[in-house]
Amino acid sequence: MIANNASGMMGDNYFKAMRIHQSRRPTSEFLSKVLSTIRQICREWSSEGLPERDACYKPIIEELNAIYPIESDRHDIRILVPGCGLGRLAHDLIENGYTVQGNEFSFFMLFTSFFILNVCKEANQFTIYPYLFDKSNCWKPEDRLRGVTFPDKALASTMSNRPNSFSMCAGDFLEIVRGAEFDAIVSAWFLDTANDIFKYIDAIYDALPDNGVWINVGPLTWHYEDVAGETSIELSYSEIMLRIRQKGFRVIKETQIDSKYTVNRLSMLQNQFTCGYFYARKGLQQPSSFSISNH
Amino acid sequence: MIANNASGMMGDNYFKAMRIHQSRRPTSEFLSKVLSTIRQICREWSSEGLPERDACYKPIIEELNAIYPIESDRHDIRILVPGCGLGRLAHDLIENGYTVQGNEFSFFMLFTSFFILNVCKEANQFTIYPYLFDKSNCWKPEDRLRGVTFPDKALASTMSNRPNSFSMCAGDFLEIVRGAEFDAIVSAWFLDTANDIFKYIDAIYDALPDNGVWINVGPLTWHYEDVAGETSIELSYSEIMLRIRQKGFRVIKETQIDSKYTVNRLSMLQNQFTCGYFYARKGLQQPSSFSISNH
Repeated sequence: MIANNASGMMGDNYFKAMRIHQSRRPTSEFLSKVLSTIRQICREWSSEGLPERDACYKPIIEELNAIYPIESDRHDIRILVPGCGLGRLAHDLIENGYTVQGNEFSFFMLFTSFFILNVCKEANQFTIYPYLFDKSNCWKPEDRLRGVTFPDKALASTMSNRPNSFSMCAGDFLEIVRGAEFDAIVSAWFLDTANDIFKYIDAIYDALPDNGVWINVGPLTWHYEDVAGETSIELSYSEIMLRIRQKGFRVIKETQIDSKYTVNRLSMLQNQFTCGYFYARKGLQQPSSFSISNH
Repeated sequence: MIANNASGMMGDNYFKAMRIHQSRRPTSEFLSKVLSTIRQICREWSSEGLPERDACYKPIIEELNAIYPIESDRHDIRILVPGCGLGRLAHDLIENGYTVQGNEFSFFMLFTSFFILNVCKEANQFTIYPYLFDKSNCWKPEDRLRGVTFPDKALASTMSNRPNSFSMCAGDFLEIVRGAEFDAIVSAWFLDTANDIFKYIDAIYDALPDNGVWINVGPLTWHYEDVAGETSIELSYSEIMLRIRQKGFRVIKETQIDSKYTVNRLSMLQNQFTCGYFYARKGLQQPSSFSISNH
């Protein structure tokens, strides 16, 4: 159903897209991406995922709202959310009044976020069974069989009649961001998708104006760590922070956030991440208006 | 060094064993077993592993000591520890006075436990660097580079002059246990190594006398879940408990224990298990001596 609706993304090519059929048996890599997409629906768009969203998205939104306290002015603030997955953080920023561009590379995520944002109409309209294949670490057979409804809120109507705008941009972050400018960039569970973290830091720097805002949260599970033939530079967190400061950011706030990621909360095994969280501004010096108030 | 000393296990075949050389490049499966053995040394025989041991081994030992309160009589109590890994739980039971047989299938574990139990003489004699290859989720480069010493206590002298005995038995649990009898069986992080959990339950039942003790702790990360060509029956915990009761055990105590397993405590990612813990006795009825006291 998600894939069928995704053909709607293709505009005039709709009927051509409808004629695409799967003729080969899907590979295990493909199937594992389907499974992780289903788990991502739980994280971003079900009430099961609320604790995970509260842990990571809430601090970001509160930080941004403290930086931009006047809600009616926020439509002028352009925020980029790279690696936006199924778009929930981007959507919540829209609801807070910002103009947001989400960027995502994975077709699995793009198809599914299109479906959720544009096709789902009612809260809890659909039910998935994301834990059916969790064969290990199960307390009771019922735990495996339970359904999860999504989206957790009605969506189609929430986007209209706003001065701010919401766009989704498909493609590689480093390509997308080239030449673009945003007032703020929010990288949530994103930095470790880099082949070369130095390029990400440079790109974020280049896409911000002086004093532009960068908020980051996430662990460092380097996605290309064990992928043959791919560059993978596995810095530690302290090395990344050193590079960020050397590049010309001043780090205003730095803390740690405990969070899980797409866990089955009823499993015997819970992967608990402690994420690095920071809020930084581009430019080494305080802007002049701030400097004056210090004297 | 561990492999060289392992040749001592082979008695008369020592010199033959010394002539075995590795002519092929080790496979990635082999290397991952070496890495997990190194992590297992930390868990069982270093002070880094103390929190993990305290979580799982301590409750078992305290339970057994409550069942068999007279220390001087414990040498008559024969305990089997299947899947004993590097032998720490078996060793600690010996120190509490029991006669213990450890059983282990993996040569990696057998070689290494032989080295620790029979070759190591002093506390903190050796240093390993188990986190060198943890490329992801690292806070500081120093965290990757830190050494861990083992064993956490002097060993060679602790085994002598005891009325109880300690033996290690190499091989498959189902083969080893056939026809043997033990007063107690302690299955710690073991049940999920089964191809067929029903056979394990049957074998434990058969190896105990009436009223014999079974203590279990562990999650259910079924080892053969994704192994092609292997039987794997992935029951949930409640289904296992049902089977245990149906087989003819009475479950005297049942609880949950939170524990980690070979974690790098400085990593951003901590795998947290909630283990099923139970203490059961073979036979559906209270033994007659107990029944009398109830009337």
